[in-house]
Amino acid sequence: MRASQKDFENAMNQVKLLKKDPGNEVKLKLYSLYKQETARQNYVDLVSSLSSSLESSSQVEPGTDRKSTGYETLMVTSEDGITKIMLNRPTKKNALNVEMYHEIMHALKAASKDDSAITVLTGNGDYYSSGNDLTNFTDIPPGGVEEKAKNGAILLREFVGCFIDFPKPLIAVVNGPAVGISVTLLGLFDAVYASDRATFHTPFSHLGQSPEGCSSYTFPKIMSPAKATEMLVFGKKLTAGEACAQGLVTEVFPDSTFQKEVWTRLKAFAKLPPNAMRISKEIIRNREKEKLHAVNAEECSVLQGRWLSDECMNAVVNFLSRKSKL
Amino acid sequence: MRASQKDFENAMNQVKLLKKDPGNEVKLKLYSLYKQETARQNYVDLVSSLSSSLESSSQVEPGTDRKSTGYETLMVTSEDGITKIMLNRPTKKNALNVEMYHEIMHALKAASKDDSAITVLTGNGDYYSSGNDLTNFTDIPPGGVEEKAKNGAILLREFVGCFIDFPKPLIAVVNGPAVGISVTLLGLFDAVYASDRATFHTPFSHLGQSPEGCSSYTFPKIMSPAKATEMLVFGKKLTAGEACAQGLVTEVFPDSTFQKEVWTRLKAFAKLPPNAMRISKEIIRNREKEKLHAVNAEECSVLQGRWLSDECMNAVVNFLSRKSKL
Amino acid sequence: MRASQKDFENAMNQVKLLKKDPGNEVKLKLYSLYKQETARQNYVDLVSSLSSSLESSSQVEPGTDRKSTGYETLMVTSEDGITKIMLNRPTKKNALNVEMYHEIMHALKAASKDDSAITVLTGNGDYYSSGNDLTNFTDIPPGGVEEKAKNGAILLREFVGCFIDFPKPLIAVVNGPAVGISVTLLGLFDAVYASDRATFHTPFSHLGQSPEGCSSYTFPKIMSPAKATEMLVFGKKLTAGEACAQGLVTEVFPDSTFQKEVWTRLKAFAKLPPNAMRISKEIIRNREKEKLHAVNAEECSVLQGRWLSDECMNAVVNFLSRKSKL
Repeated sequence: MRASQKDFENAMNQVKLLKKDPGNEVKLKLYSLYKQETARQNYVDLVSSLSSSLESSSQVEPGTDRKSTGYETLMVTSEDGITKIMLNRPTKKNALNVEMYHEIMHALKAASKDDSAITVLTGNGDYYSSGNDLTNFTDIPPGGVEEKAKNGAILLREFVGCFIDFPKPLIAVVNGPAVGISVTLLGLFDAVYASDRATFHTPFSHLGQSPEGCSSYTFPKIMSPAKATEMLVFGKKLTAGEACAQGLVTEVFPDSTFQKEVWTRLKAFAKLPPNAMRISKEIIRNREKEKLHAVNAEECSVLQGRWLSDECMNAVVNFLSRKSKL
Repeated sequence: MRASQKDFENAMNQVKLLKKDPGNEVKLKLYSLYKQETARQNYVDLVSSLSSSLESSSQVEPGTDRKSTGYETLMVTSEDGITKIMLNRPTKKNALNVEMYHEIMHALKAASKDDSAITVLTGNGDYYSSGNDLTNFTDIPPGGVEEKAKNGAILLREFVGCFIDFPKPLIAVVNGPAVGISVTLLGLFDAVYASDRATFHTPFSHLGQSPEGCSSYTFPKIMSPAKATEMLVFGKKLTAGEACAQGLVTEVFPDSTFQKEVWTRLKAFAKLPPNAMRISKEIIRNREKEKLHAVNAEECSVLQGRWLSDECMNAVVNFLSRKSKL
Repeated sequence: MRASQKDFENAMNQVKLLKKDPGNEVKLKLYSLYKQETARQNYVDLVSSLSSSLESSSQVEPGTDRKSTGYETLMVTSEDGITKIMLNRPTKKNALNVEMYHEIMHALKAASKDDSAITVLTGNGDYYSSGNDLTNFTDIPPGGVEEKAKNGAILLREFVGCFIDFPKPLIAVVNGPAVGISVTLLGLFDAVYASDRATFHTPFSHLGQSPEGCSSYTFPKIMSPAKATEMLVFGKKLTAGEACAQGLVTEVFPDSTFQKEVWTRLKAFAKLPPNAMRISKEIIRNREKEKLHAVNAEECSVLQGRWLSDECMNAVVNFLSRKSKL
């Protein structure tokens, strides 16, 4: 027997009137149920906005290149010696949900074995990526939040490990704002080209969390500890120009010519002797690989604890409540 | 039986006429005795200039916050989640004498345990700090200069160790020129905000000395070896803008709005979840801690040897002679 | 019985008409023989251009300082506490041939023991150095290209090792464009001053090769991995200003006042206490020495393999063919 829309709205109002706070775990479950109910409408909205986004996007020109099918959250193409992995949830600002984590890993593994010389990660639409999709926190398994946190740490570690081990030149084309893990991972790329519309934001403390993607190691090396702490601990948002001055970004381009200039350059790179490039990357990366894997493991372990902390639970519930007006 | 002022002046003139150089150790003792004689006058001058300095200072507003008393060389306050340790020898350009070394260690240990979220170090008056007070060299114990050097190395190592181990975000508010160890320690801070009046100067070679504060390790990492050597070995003085471009400083502010802008920002930081910040700092710092302690020990050991070298003795005696017109 | 100029030209034309590609090893031998034939003319040209270069150079003022004689490819002088090693093949853009590798090692060893306080490396003429002389590839020993590659790796490792171990402040005065190993070695200098005419170019991938001079380790540390990869893997050429912003260069000067400003500064440095400078450099460098030697060994081993690869052979033969119009 399914509750009516009216019953649901009554229940939502009752939640707001509860005298005693039901606790964060209950709130996350309520949010999860609320989301299921509203999922149909979201689906319609998503499809509608996706369609308009695809219509207005000049990047995606179906039919001109080899496409890998079978991806739900990505668009993967390969031509001119370049495999392009495009995050493709534009109406969700390319937030990484669990499916996208798995699909990126799959796409990276395929790209490492195909005949392309270089691999590119970019985003479809206005955003590069808004980072970890916080609704990931609401799908709580039977084992409760502890199991949720444990599974999250295992997935994150495997995901970051794919970037550490990627054997070819890996280039980020940052087409717009980047948040959270989409920023921290940049420290593991071999080159980062950014539109001047891009921003770089890691509000971990605000969410009661701690750095991942090896950023607790790579960022202080890249940009000095005093600059890295301002980003990773105090959540300072950088402009593309600032990120470039601090070494996180290789070069910034005006948004109006960004795609054209970057892809011209990338196509030239892709014509260089591929073995020389792979071996040169290898000699640079191999020296750091063991260290990076250790850092990754440590960061995931610390985050697992953070996800169960009151600071984190409060911050996530507040964020989702604001978002859903729960 | 106390010598008259006249006797003392005669003696000083005789020193200048000595045909044979009495050697650096004797000169340091002469300087020490000279200083004791002139101490009374210095005391009066100090009190007088301190009073005028305090009158003109807009930073210090007694009575508005919790003050820790019992410090001679510092002013320590705690409010809005921030513990502020202010170097307070403005008439001596906040030079670090032995007492100040001990008091800073004490204040850091207290701050690490209080309920503040972040800790700030700054200077009262025009200077951030002119560095190690060179008159520290003149107070020679019965064991002679060897014992002096040994004690100095032990104190320095313990002092720098407190900065390595400090568990909360530690922020420098560099209100004016910084010299020597007050510069090198910045490599151990989590953020460094500087007035555009600030300069950064480490004239170690000029004084026959060598780098401390872990700067022989942190500076090449922060600013590249070619830039670090120019500072640490050749004594190049940096402007605030240069120090910022090279990663030693997080951000520079116009002096006219420096205090207002920085403290607004710091108060916002202090409201972030404190455990998240502490844990994020910890994951960054712990990885380096063992290395930093080893570097600190090595630097202190090398400096102990330097302090006994002719190059250093000559430089210090020349500096003090010029200062005292001995 | 010696072949006539006519016979030689006929043979050259025949090479171009060969239906079957003779292979890279044969091509290198052909090039070598071709070069021996044209060597007499080159010798005359070289002497002629050398003479005009020396006449127009304001840097070289014979007779004003102590010169070390016995060098064919260098000009080594010592005055004002500074030993200056000047690369002196201006008509070859100071390309490093095998003799120059040996002479630089000899000059560095002598400078480490002389009474100078600092040592400077610079170039005579328009170039700092165009890097490894690619004609080095053509002098193939009886053991063939394998022996050639092995000997090359041994020489390179010994050569770079001299820079790692140099005990005094070592300063590069980059008077013009720098290419290849003359760029990568800069990561081992203690300060790098550049004319605004200088450029920094490491086209290793273009030549099918991989980074040396410890640059696979020093460059990512100096300028962040994303910037280092663009140089070392994709062959991006930097301006002096870019190289300075990224920490590879200490300071850039207008070419019109470059020599005057830099040497004024260097003469001031050379008057600082020499032991303090040597010990300060030592405490910075010793910590990295073991690592740098390991990196050097690894890079040379990888390069030895690269030199025998088709990618490299093709690139070198193409380069030499274009140059010689073979």
